[in-house]
This record gives sequence, C-alpha cells and structure tokens, in this order.
Amino acid sequence: MKIGILGYGNLGRGVESAVRQNADMELVCIFTRRDPASVHPATEGVAVYPVDDVAKMQGKIDVLVLCGGSATDLPEQTPEYAKYFNVIDSFDTHARIPEHFANVDQAAKENGHVAMISCGWDPGMFSIMRLYGSAILPEGKDYTFWGKGVSQGHSDAIRRVPGVKNGKQYTIPVEAALEAVRSGANPELTTRQKHVRECFVVAEEGADLAQIEQDIKTMPNYFDEYDTTVHFISEEEFARDHAEIPHGGFVFRTGVTGLEKEHKHVVEYSLKLDSNPEFTSSVILAFARAINRLSNEGVSGCKTVFDIAPAYLSPLSGEELRAHML
Amino acid sequence: MKIGILGYGNLGRGVESAVRQNADMELVCIFTRRDPASVHPATEGVAVYPVDDVAKMQGKIDVLVLCGGSATDLPEQTPEYAKYFNVIDSFDTHARIPEHFANVDQAAKENGHVAMISCGWDPGMFSIMRLYGSAILPEGKDYTFWGKGVSQGHSDAIRRVPGVKNGKQYTIPVEAALEAVRSGANPELTTRQKHVRECFVVAEEGADLAQIEQDIKTMPNYFDEYDTTVHFISEEEFARDHAEIPHGGFVFRTGVTGLEKEHKHVVEYSLKLDSNPEFTSSVILAFARAINRLSNEGVSGCKTVFDIAPAYLSPLSGEELRAHML
Repeated sequence: MKIGILGYGNLGRGVESAVRQNADMELVCIFTRRDPASVHPATEGVAVYPVDDVAKMQGKIDVLVLCGGSATDLPEQTPEYAKYFNVIDSFDTHARIPEHFANVDQAAKENGHVAMISCGWDPGMFSIMRLYGSAILPEGKDYTFWGKGVSQGHSDAIRRVPGVKNGKQYTIPVEAALEAVRSGANPELTTRQKHVRECFVVAEEGADLAQIEQDIKTMPNYFDEYDTTVHFISEEEFARDHAEIPHGGFVFRTGVTGLEKEHKHVVEYSLKLDSNPEFTSSVILAFARAINRLSNEGVSGCKTVFDIAPAYLSPLSGEELRAHML
Repeated sequence: MKIGILGYGNLGRGVESAVRQNADMELVCIFTRRDPASVHPATEGVAVYPVDDVAKMQGKIDVLVLCGGSATDLPEQTPEYAKYFNVIDSFDTHARIPEHFANVDQAAKENGHVAMISCGWDPGMFSIMRLYGSAILPEGKDYTFWGKGVSQGHSDAIRRVPGVKNGKQYTIPVEAALEAVRSGANPELTTRQKHVRECFVVAEEGADLAQIEQDIKTMPNYFDEYDTTVHFISEEEFARDHAEIPHGGFVFRTGVTGLEKEHKHVVEYSLKLDSNPEFTSSVILAFARAINRLSNEGVSGCKTVFDIAPAYLSPLSGEELRAHML
C-alpha cells in the first residue's frame, strides 16, 4: 500500500512513524503548503512536494492521509482531494459531520474513490464503542470521559489571555464520577462533575497573575462551567514537564437485562496514550488499509468507522483471524 | 425481525428476555428437545415446538438462535439448521472454530442463508477488541483476563469429584497482573500469575473434606496450574449466595509508537456482567440484526463478528449514527 501525507505537523509526523510499523505500507511522499525545501522527513527517500502538485501523483498513491485541521483545512481539502485519491481524514467537529460527509461522499462517488472522514479515537474508536454498547444493551446509558490529556483547543485559549506567554491545559476526568459510572448506578452527571481542567501557564514578566487566573477561570465555553486550577511555572519547567501530548479517556455503556431488568452490566473501554497524534495516526493507518481494500473491491463514496468490518483492518487473512484471534 | 430459539436453557431464556428489549424484534417460537408441554416461555403467545418440526417453520423465522452447547450440540446443529434458516450460534471451542466454520459455511452457501458462529463476548466482543488492538498497535502485546465470574466447565469438574454434592467455581484475575499490564510494562505472565480459582463446595454428608480439597486442587488441566481456594459451605449458603451466573473480564492491547518507539499506549476493554447468559444473548441479538440485513442484501455463507461492520448492529440509520454517535 502506497501512502501519501498532506500536512507535516504533529499528525503528519505520526503517520510517517506509524507507516514504519506496518510491513504492508510504504510512505511515498509528503505534500506541504510550506516551502518543500524546509520540510525534512525522518524517513529516507520520501519526496516532499508542494501541495499544488497533488494531482501529478494521481495513480501513484493508494491512500492520501489528510493531516490538516478541522476548522478550515479539512472542509475544503477532503472533498477536493477525494477527486484524485482515496483519502482519509480525522475531522473532529462533531456537529458538522453530516455536512462534511455529504460533501466528501459526492466528490468520492463522482470520481470512483473511497473516502473516510472522522477517523481516530474520538471520533473513531470511541464512536465504535458507543455504537457497540448501545446495540448490545439497548436499555442503558452512555458515558464518555476524556483525559487525562492535553486539550489543544483549551491550550490555545489560554495562550490568547493577555499576559500569558505560554500555556497548556490538561482535561482530567473526576475519579468519583468514573467510580459512580462503574458501579452501574447510571448517575446523571453535570459538566462540572465529570471533568476538571488543570492549566500550566508561563506568564509574561510583570504580568498580573491574579488577573490571568481570573480571566482563564471565567472564560465562557472553555472554563466557566468547570473547576479549573491554574499553576504558574517557569519557561524551563514548561519545557521540561509539558513537552509531550498525552491523552486518553473512557467510554462506558451501562445497562440492564433480564425479565425484571434485574441484572446490571458495565462495559468500559479506555485509552491511556503517551502521544495523542501518534495513536490517532495508528488508527488512521489501520482504516486506510480497509479503505484501500474497499477501493480494490470497486466500492466508492464516503465511509466512517461504523461502515468498516473489523477484518478489513488487519493484514491477516480471514482464516488466520479465525484461527488465532477469534 | 422474527426470531426463533432452539434450546431453552440459560442462553435460550436470555435470548427471550433480550428480544423484549429490541423494538424491531419479535420472538416467534422456541424449539426444544424436551416435551414441548414441559416448556413454559415467559412471553405470552410464543409457540413451543419439538425440534423435529424445525423445517416446518421455514420462511417464518428471519434468524434462528442456536442455544445448544459447543461440545456436541452446535457442531451438528449449526450446519444442519443453516439449511433452513439464517442461524447464529455461540460456539466457543476456540481450537475447533476453523473446522466448524467450514462446515457451516458450506451448508449456508448451498442453501442461500447467512450463518454466524462464535458470537457472544469471548469469542465475540473480546475477539473484536483483540483485532482492533493488534491492527492499531502492530508492535504490542495482547492480554485477555477472565472474571470475576463463574466458569461452567470448572464448576462441572468440581461436581464430578467424589463426595461433592454441589459446587461452583469462580475465575478471578490477579489484581497485580492487571496493574502490571496497565502500567504498559508488557510483562510476561504465567498461567498462575494471571488468574486464581475459588471454589464453593457443598459436600455429601460424611465426605472426606481434605480428600475433596486435594482432588480439586490437583485436577489436571482444570486446577493444577492455578492457585486454588476451596470453601466448604452448606446447601443453604450455596442457594443464597451462589445462584447467579456473573462473569466478565478484560482485554488489553499495549504497544509502542514513535520513531524511537518512545511512546507507550494502553487500550483496555472490560466487562462486568451480572448475568453471563443474558449479556451473551444481548450480543447475539445485535449480530442477529446484522445477519438478517446481510441476508436481505443477498449475502450467503458463514460470518464471524470480524466480518460485520458496526453500523449493521444498530437499529439506527447511517444518518442517525453519524449525527448522534460519531
């Protein structure tokens, strides 16, 4: 399988390293909006092209992995590049998925390609777990918790506060809430009861720390509905302790069965990830394998993780899977 | 969807109660090897027929759920009834799955039906988790733990020991082993390090308790490789405290990513089930929905949980799933 990458940020680099862990895959090239001479792939022999040259690689890439952002890049890029290749993205603006799906589906169908949107872990593996859970236990309740991990959106929001030089925000699930869900009690939980937010901030010299703290804690949408802690640290501490991008979370389905609904069941799926972009990339490549197979079968159009039979993700044959993994 | 049940034991009763939780399903009839007059379904209006009358119901059932045992029932029943219906079973003799698959596949294909074997939670949901885990993190390790829960096979083995009137065996994962796996340390674990076995035994009057305990603890294949505890209890205690059939377990995938394999990831899926047969039945019905859909699409042959796209399990449409669950 020949893989192309569009966009060489954290996610693009994650895809590059994940390709090396899959013997049936090869990274052919990276497309960038920057000056190609300024991009240095970690893998020898990988070409770097300007994004305007994408069409020239038609027929030479099995799946193009789109590594742009959900706010402005992917709504344009995924329908555009589905004209030339099978494509996969990690579009994560949940509310706009139906619209994005429709645009991508049309472009992919018109050009005989397979596209997948919203691949990763949420949306992605967590979505799959919500679906399995609700199909198996129709009388029950879903819970999704995120963290402990870095929220890029909240970290960006902190850095926009006057007097802030650098900042990082960790989303942390509340242990008591996790335990209440695990008990099968089906609790109703408010936003505040589910997660806390912890901020590490490097302030500009002479900045009003009390004001920064108040600005963060009262920021609408981002922090005002949460219990938030703000720690002021030095640039050195920031570089030493907060360079990584860990994340993770939990999906629960709790429900009842039995003639009298007398039996409780708790299904729990959790991720603890040292690197959010590298894990996301790893999920994307497994699904890239699936969409390449679908494409070889003559399928076209937009798919999501819901549409992919698990067997399509594995390099093993059906016989091998049944003999060793079932 | 019209559902039929063959075999009205714990699993058959579980299917019956699970049908009531799925608005798109209806239980049509139960087939039994016993005298039909001795079988009293909990659901009004459900017919009970002798198993020899199965063929008469052809065309009146969308999916027949086979609730027999894996040792002798299902190897005969699943290929036989795949001639008349779409069928689904919970065949769980892992080593014989390839042979069972081949037999069922041939019968299903020759007669234009869809069959699914080995559906439930292990094999079943746990198998799916092993597959997703290994496809996403190719450089890693799988771990499956079972329990805390009742092992029917081990409980049967206890009851065959001379002097034992009644007995139940709980398989319990060792907490230290779970923690070692959760840490991402990729430990090598022996059989003894992973699980302990706890037995509750009602002895015959005057039986030699020390002898019973030794017979259990040294029983080859079942107990000799485990740390086993034996508790002698009264018939009353047995009836009061050990009437239920709880189970559960854990599937882990731990692995590394990154150019230097410097990032660890831990994926954990766990089940805590008050009723093993009712949860298994609930999984079976979700997959019964999927095979009915495949059958309506003109598919035939034997499938496993690996072959089913998650979307096929849900009563919701693709649009609804994308809008609300992705």
